[in-house]
Amino acid sequence: MFQKDYDKLQQIANKISDINSAIFLLEWDQQTNMPQEGAAERAEQIGTLSTISHQEATSNQLGNLLDKLSNFQKDLDPESYEFCLIKVMQRDYEQKTKIPADLIGRFSQATAIGQHKWERARHENEFNIFEESLSEIFELRKQMAKCHSPFDCIYDPLLDEFEPEMATKTVQDIFNIIKPQQIALIQKIQEDYKRNPIDDSFLFQNFDEKKQWDFGVKVLTDMGYDWKSGRQDKAAHPFTTTFGLGDVRITTRIHSNNFMSGLFSSIHEGGHALYEQGVARNLQRTSLGTGASLAIHESQSRLWENMVGRSLSFWHHYYPILQAIFPSQLGNVSINNFYRAINKVEPSLIRVEADEVTYNLHIMLRLELEIALLNGEIQVSDLPDVWNCKMQEYLGVTPDSDANGVLQDVHWSCGIIGYFPTYALGNMISAMFFDKAKSSLDNLDAKISQGNLLPLRNYLKETLHCHGAKFTPNELMKKIFNSKIDESFYINYLSNKYEEINSMI
Amino acid sequence: MFQKDYDKLQQIANKISDINSAIFLLEWDQQTNMPQEGAAERAEQIGTLSTISHQEATSNQLGNLLDKLSNFQKDLDPESYEFCLIKVMQRDYEQKTKIPADLIGRFSQATAIGQHKWERARHENEFNIFEESLSEIFELRKQMAKCHSPFDCIYDPLLDEFEPEMATKTVQDIFNIIKPQQIALIQKIQEDYKRNPIDDSFLFQNFDEKKQWDFGVKVLTDMGYDWKSGRQDKAAHPFTTTFGLGDVRITTRIHSNNFMSGLFSSIHEGGHALYEQGVARNLQRTSLGTGASLAIHESQSRLWENMVGRSLSFWHHYYPILQAIFPSQLGNVSINNFYRAINKVEPSLIRVEADEVTYNLHIMLRLELEIALLNGEIQVSDLPDVWNCKMQEYLGVTPDSDANGVLQDVHWSCGIIGYFPTYALGNMISAMFFDKAKSSLDNLDAKISQGNLLPLRNYLKETLHCHGAKFTPNELMKKIFNSKIDESFYINYLSNKYEEINSMI
Repeated sequence: MFQKDYDKLQQIANKISDINSAIFLLEWDQQTNMPQEGAAERAEQIGTLSTISHQEATSNQLGNLLDKLSNFQKDLDPESYEFCLIKVMQRDYEQKTKIPADLIGRFSQATAIGQHKWERARHENEFNIFEESLSEIFELRKQMAKCHSPFDCIYDPLLDEFEPEMATKTVQDIFNIIKPQQIALIQKIQEDYKRNPIDDSFLFQNFDEKKQWDFGVKVLTDMGYDWKSGRQDKAAHPFTTTFGLGDVRITTRIHSNNFMSGLFSSIHEGGHALYEQGVARNLQRTSLGTGASLAIHESQSRLWENMVGRSLSFWHHYYPILQAIFPSQLGNVSINNFYRAINKVEPSLIRVEADEVTYNLHIMLRLELEIALLNGEIQVSDLPDVWNCKMQEYLGVTPDSDANGVLQDVHWSCGIIGYFPTYALGNMISAMFFDKAKSSLDNLDAKISQGNLLPLRNYLKETLHCHGAKFTPNELMKKIFNSKIDESFYINYLSNKYEEINSMI
Repeated sequence: MFQKDYDKLQQIANKISDINSAIFLLEWDQQTNMPQEGAAERAEQIGTLSTISHQEATSNQLGNLLDKLSNFQKDLDPESYEFCLIKVMQRDYEQKTKIPADLIGRFSQATAIGQHKWERARHENEFNIFEESLSEIFELRKQMAKCHSPFDCIYDPLLDEFEPEMATKTVQDIFNIIKPQQIALIQKIQEDYKRNPIDDSFLFQNFDEKKQWDFGVKVLTDMGYDWKSGRQDKAAHPFTTTFGLGDVRITTRIHSNNFMSGLFSSIHEGGHALYEQGVARNLQRTSLGTGASLAIHESQSRLWENMVGRSLSFWHHYYPILQAIFPSQLGNVSINNFYRAINKVEPSLIRVEADEVTYNLHIMLRLELEIALLNGEIQVSDLPDVWNCKMQEYLGVTPDSDANGVLQDVHWSCGIIGYFPTYALGNMISAMFFDKAKSSLDNLDAKISQGNLLPLRNYLKETLHCHGAKFTPNELMKKIFNSKIDESFYINYLSNKYEEINSMI
């Protein structure tokens, strides 16, 4: 009986995965290829397939099947594919069936309107245009959160949607520890810069776009990105998407007058893609055939972007190559000055452009605002002022406009609330992975200095990627680190790195 | 009551259309972008969505709704959107529900295998590899045809699937008339060539691919192809696909050593795309939001490719432009010699490379073989020999290999039987449209000679395109020409054209 029911579950898993892959393709195409007049029909197509996917994932048939199969869980190895598929589908089913259909419908409508309003508000630099719509989105998210009660904090179920089993309190505890340390580090670095200023103007000369693209492709290839199972395209807002374990695509942007933007976006998305390409093939066409969570995913992209891509070791190998490609721009710039420039710390307004040291503060601000809004401590109408005050407090800068302040991120307009902390958690976890890789692999730095990136890729694949979404983030942390998230690795990494940079003259 | 049921029908129509658009995108991406390792999962995704689409299109709910709504048809204007949507969905429902699900399943499996076998057989030039699989495909198609009994000819329901209401007898009658005339014309032209030979070798020099692409884009733009509602990409086998009336995409191929291939493929697909882009917007997201049939569709692509793109008038405008782009290749070639070369008639082995005069004979051969196989007059194992005999009889050439003979087309391996005649019917209808356009528009030739192609586009849009699939091909022919398909227009067009060409020295 188990086998028959399990096969049926597998079929449903395959069906849902296939539908979701089609949705991802509709979305990828929307960002990379779609002509402008296709937008309205495309939105309907995504809506229709999302509804079908949701119906499949919440059907009574699936519920009954999971009920029956859960009786067999005790006889299965908790690390087995079967156990994990039942577990993950059960979790997903429970999450999704808790929200009434009419609430989901209202939420879809509100976010469809929200995105239009946000775009207009941002374009016209007029928060008022977005205010009413954003209030409704927060109100609906609050109602959706309440469907998951009881909880310690109303933010818990929202966070849990993106980061399974993560508690708000855990994030807040971590943030409370790192906030003063990061602020102190920023101040120290700014003092250092007074004695030892950084000139990064050479990064903003004219760099041929095709040559930038080709250099990025070379790095991605060295990282082990499998071009037979993926491709890279241009998109205004880079992202990685998976249509199947044999088709993991990345996007990047290239700016002729900003060398860093394209390369680090390619490496970042490449980090995400290596994770997906590294998932064991037998997990394909199920919800196990992807990364474990957003924070774990972000740990991989940040590790490659920052700990590898912004390391001196990396550039020992790649800088001479880059200089040969751009002799007039970089021929007279020493590797040390290049390294210092690409790691320049500068409190700024825009999260996605923030450096490694200031980045987490942008996240903390957002988390605090999201919780305060959900708790009713502030109103949506207060947002612009509170945003600007906190920016001044944490980063010492005040937005010149709401477009560069509270309106900068797309997330809230799409109803994505509870997501931001995963970026910062990803930073924490990336440092743990890099530390572990260094102690597990002989002379990792030396390998990276030779452009030999595959040992790191293979280590990550064997340690993490192959498991796909079989285990929760907590289970993975326990399995790999025998520990919870430990923020000290990231703080140590930053301190050591900027200590080293400051010692360079 | 009508309105409520009708709204429900509209919703189902929208849902099916959205799912089908996603399938078309999965297929487009497969041909244009997909990395090779994505193939297996992509096939599953297309299969899953096709099953969902089929279930929606054959549901009891839809059947009941159509039953109820058909009672209201007598009160509706037969040209109204509502009447036509009910009519077309009824037809589709009846067609699809006649085939048992298990037969559809067996057919899907057989064609999945068939495509692999065909590819291998073609690659290895070994018909035996494909024989057993092709036998099964024909057997299953026969069984599917029988589900539609009674019929005059077993080929009728297969043809009807691609060309609604078209009878095999009608096609055979037309072919019986044109076959001797086309064979005679080929012989006459070959006699003419003896006195007045054609040198087309300059078409096979090296033509920069980017410049070819740009010239094609210019022509497409002049034709009125709307780039805000579409795009062009490269594909090995060019096709047009519609994801929505605001997103109609074409594909083309570019060969550096064959100037004609890319340009005429772009114009051909552009003709298909103008049809889809010209459909009235209120038909979007339903099965009315596309062309009426394959033959009507092909009439548009052929009209643009051959009657416009291979006309002397067209090149009066474009040839000087082309010469300026390719001075070393074409600078010394007169327009008359260019025109004669792009219209060179030469019996050859491959259908898709055939000229206007020999093309239909390739189709007649295929129709005769398909009917003979379905009637049991020949067996699949006889195919290579019969194919080669008929090629010799009709075209005076014998394939050097099965790869260049019976294995050249993908259609049968996909189970597409009953499709080929629509290509030839499209030729017939294209001549009727072009004749009608000439008599309806002042000085059409002169306009084309000035590169002013929009009057023709607009005429076709108003006369045909706007109707989408509201009417059957027969209804359209009656409405537009007050006639059935009349093959004399095409024969006259060919005779006149080659008379003119022969008079050029």
